[in-house]
Amino acid sequence: MADKVDGMGKAEITAFADSQRGRFEALLKEFVETPSVSTDPAYKADCLRMADLACRTLAEFGFKPSLIETKGNPIIAAESVIDPKLPTVTIYNHMDVQPGGDKSEWKTEPFVFTQEGDTYYGRGTTDDKGPGLSALFGAHYALKHGARVNVRFLWELEEEIGSPNFAAGIRSAKASIKTDFVVVSDTIWVSRQRPASPAGLRGLQSFRLTLETGTGDRHSGVTGGAARNPIAEMCDLVAKMVDAKTGKVLIPGFYKNVKKPTKAELADFKASGFTVAKFLKDHGFKSIRTKDAVDLMTRIWAMPTFEVHGIAGGYQGAGVKTVVPPRAEAKLSCRIVPRMTPQEVLKLVTAFVKKHNKDVQIHAENGLDPYEGLTTGPLADLIRDAMGFAFGKKPVFVREGGSIGAIKTMEDVLGAPAVFLGLSLPEHGYHAPNENYDWAQARGGIVAFARLFAQAANLKKDVGVKALAAKTAKAR
Amino acid sequence: MADKVDGMGKAEITAFADSQRGRFEALLKEFVETPSVSTDPAYKADCLRMADLACRTLAEFGFKPSLIETKGNPIIAAESVIDPKLPTVTIYNHMDVQPGGDKSEWKTEPFVFTQEGDTYYGRGTTDDKGPGLSALFGAHYALKHGARVNVRFLWELEEEIGSPNFAAGIRSAKASIKTDFVVVSDTIWVSRQRPASPAGLRGLQSFRLTLETGTGDRHSGVTGGAARNPIAEMCDLVAKMVDAKTGKVLIPGFYKNVKKPTKAELADFKASGFTVAKFLKDHGFKSIRTKDAVDLMTRIWAMPTFEVHGIAGGYQGAGVKTVVPPRAEAKLSCRIVPRMTPQEVLKLVTAFVKKHNKDVQIHAENGLDPYEGLTTGPLADLIRDAMGFAFGKKPVFVREGGSIGAIKTMEDVLGAPAVFLGLSLPEHGYHAPNENYDWAQARGGIVAFARLFAQAANLKKDVGVKALAAKTAKAR
Repeated sequence: MADKVDGMGKAEITAFADSQRGRFEALLKEFVETPSVSTDPAYKADCLRMADLACRTLAEFGFKPSLIETKGNPIIAAESVIDPKLPTVTIYNHMDVQPGGDKSEWKTEPFVFTQEGDTYYGRGTTDDKGPGLSALFGAHYALKHGARVNVRFLWELEEEIGSPNFAAGIRSAKASIKTDFVVVSDTIWVSRQRPASPAGLRGLQSFRLTLETGTGDRHSGVTGGAARNPIAEMCDLVAKMVDAKTGKVLIPGFYKNVKKPTKAELADFKASGFTVAKFLKDHGFKSIRTKDAVDLMTRIWAMPTFEVHGIAGGYQGAGVKTVVPPRAEAKLSCRIVPRMTPQEVLKLVTAFVKKHNKDVQIHAENGLDPYEGLTTGPLADLIRDAMGFAFGKKPVFVREGGSIGAIKTMEDVLGAPAVFLGLSLPEHGYHAPNENYDWAQARGGIVAFARLFAQAANLKKDVGVKALAAKTAKAR
Repeated sequence: MADKVDGMGKAEITAFADSQRGRFEALLKEFVETPSVSTDPAYKADCLRMADLACRTLAEFGFKPSLIETKGNPIIAAESVIDPKLPTVTIYNHMDVQPGGDKSEWKTEPFVFTQEGDTYYGRGTTDDKGPGLSALFGAHYALKHGARVNVRFLWELEEEIGSPNFAAGIRSAKASIKTDFVVVSDTIWVSRQRPASPAGLRGLQSFRLTLETGTGDRHSGVTGGAARNPIAEMCDLVAKMVDAKTGKVLIPGFYKNVKKPTKAELADFKASGFTVAKFLKDHGFKSIRTKDAVDLMTRIWAMPTFEVHGIAGGYQGAGVKTVVPPRAEAKLSCRIVPRMTPQEVLKLVTAFVKKHNKDVQIHAENGLDPYEGLTTGPLADLIRDAMGFAFGKKPVFVREGGSIGAIKTMEDVLGAPAVFLGLSLPEHGYHAPNENYDWAQARGGIVAFARLFAQAANLKKDVGVKALAAKTAKAR
């Protein structure tokens, strides 16, 4: 057993983590203050600086870095290959971040690393630079103490824009990034009290609907009544597609392929430490669509959605400007669950839109596949063990409502399944103002990853291939 | 007959107008290049400069100017009182303007007076500085040639924000601005081929609906499905209030008090020179809600509306940002027709909103009363004569879809009815990019106003009081 290997006891790894806290914080500061916002072209140079910083850092920790060039931002790869016959684990993180957003909602500067006690504020602290560094420290420790495993890192710089170039990138580098399985560290626990690992991720299909009925703003006194109102028409279309009160999607066939959570999954949901009150508090909601905890978890993890992110094209300033606007754009997305596909959703939405308003144009964004995870077998057990070892409680396997398109891509291209060792908490504010990470999760993460690499040495080389075959058989 | 008075023949007044063209254009340039945007506090100083320029100009033309101070921008008053026993005519115009708007849609700078042949481009050229100056030149000429009439000017600087301080202002100055009737020059003909004067104006009630369901943007993967979507709820509410396809307002009781156009009015509509094709072309519409000309005119002039000007609060940038927004604001207004009141509309909308979504807050903006105009009697005939004299064709009395709140206010406070001698054309682009005015309308306007003042001298002193009494009796 790897925990018998010298230095792999919990107290020893924890002592290592504590000794490295200054270094961890200095690195996280440098990472956060490199504003690698992938959604905004203005930050392109920062994304490239981030790639450079990532390579330097990985090299300092003993991994051989390289860049996989793509049409967009490069992918950072790094490796420590001891012996190709040993199992190979790839750690996936992303080093790009969401925009800072509305500064007035932040109590600190989004791109200034600000420490308050054990909490680290700044964009990217928890999503996903902090967890990425935690994994790196853990891998470094395990290898230094003799873990017999090959380790690779794949750090992406376009996750927040739906990984549009990730598939092509890893396909091009396929021969040099072979792996048996992938450990993803970009997911969120249900509560600090209980580690959690996703049994599935939602996918995403986002799209814009545009409608143009005129050529410029017109006087609503002069033309109102006869002129079409593109915003009213867009509202009408949205209201036909989703019941805003219940959230039920009204597009025929939308729920057809949904894989509902099993009884075992629902039992894990209940054991996850999730409470409605905490959900409301963590996210600052005044009221939500349900008061029932299991219904709520099912809604956010295991059911598809239809979300309106904005209606653009009309007057947005103070007060009211009484013009008839010439155009409207609805910014929409559907989260989708395992067994659904982005293509299928796009097809249903397109048919519905064309039926109800033939002048509306649909513009699809990049789709992200949902991911059906592993909850049994040696890889799920590896996660159970590592999280249990580090945090004192075995994880629940729940679902994750967010989307990481890269995971299905890695499964498809590398033939390697993914498991999840996430370290973020609901209160860390993924994509939100005042995003943060904390030392308790970072320290536990270092311990968990050190343990994971040590234990992975005991797995058979074909563990990934077998897990994938079992999963595929089950889905049929 | 005043046209027997020396110098009041059409050829003579036209010759005067032509001789003054350079002066007219120089003044219009100075007026347009003083960007008196009342809707934007950033232009406050320009509004005050405009007041100063207006006083200077009125004085140069022989009228004694004064400022009526209000809580907002001052009202410019000016007078030439020959003898209180003579009829007194007040000319109403407004010297504030709409914002420049989206510069990319203008072919010239909005606040640079640009002449192309006989056309004058710039914000305020047609709404309402050009018509205001045309009236001033006409009054100047008539008085110089001995017209026995008292003339007043009321030039407002807050018309574009719904005249919030106009009532208080003229109430405070009531004793010194007595008048027998008002001539308003701020309306639009149906086509260049036929003068038109409104038989009624629509009023306006604008309001904002706000809904707050959270405290900041949230990750739609993490919260989507359970989180309320305030934009979707706003779309739902809008879709319940108006049928976007037909424009029919679905709020119960909304149409109850509508004064439908009479057969005589519909006959004038038909004779107005209005065509669907020209309406589409003038306003740059790709399609509208009807193909029938009378239906179209009725919709824009004689029926109330429910317009959506914008849905604010969500993501407005490029692409899609997959957040659940915390709040939404719908910017809405209803145009209302004679016999409806802003108060009644607000009450109906409030009750409807509260019934369908109790969390939505309603914020009313300043309401504008509709105006029921005169189509018969000596004042309507004065307009018929002046427009027929200047433009060779008597006007049709149609309706005007826009709103001028000040008119009902003047009727109520000064006890004086209003008639309309507008000079703008549909192609002049009221409130739109590339707003313009042209010399043909300016010249004709100078002639029409000169004639109007000369003819007004023949009216009895009680013409306004009698017209008002007759109108009130009819409405009962």
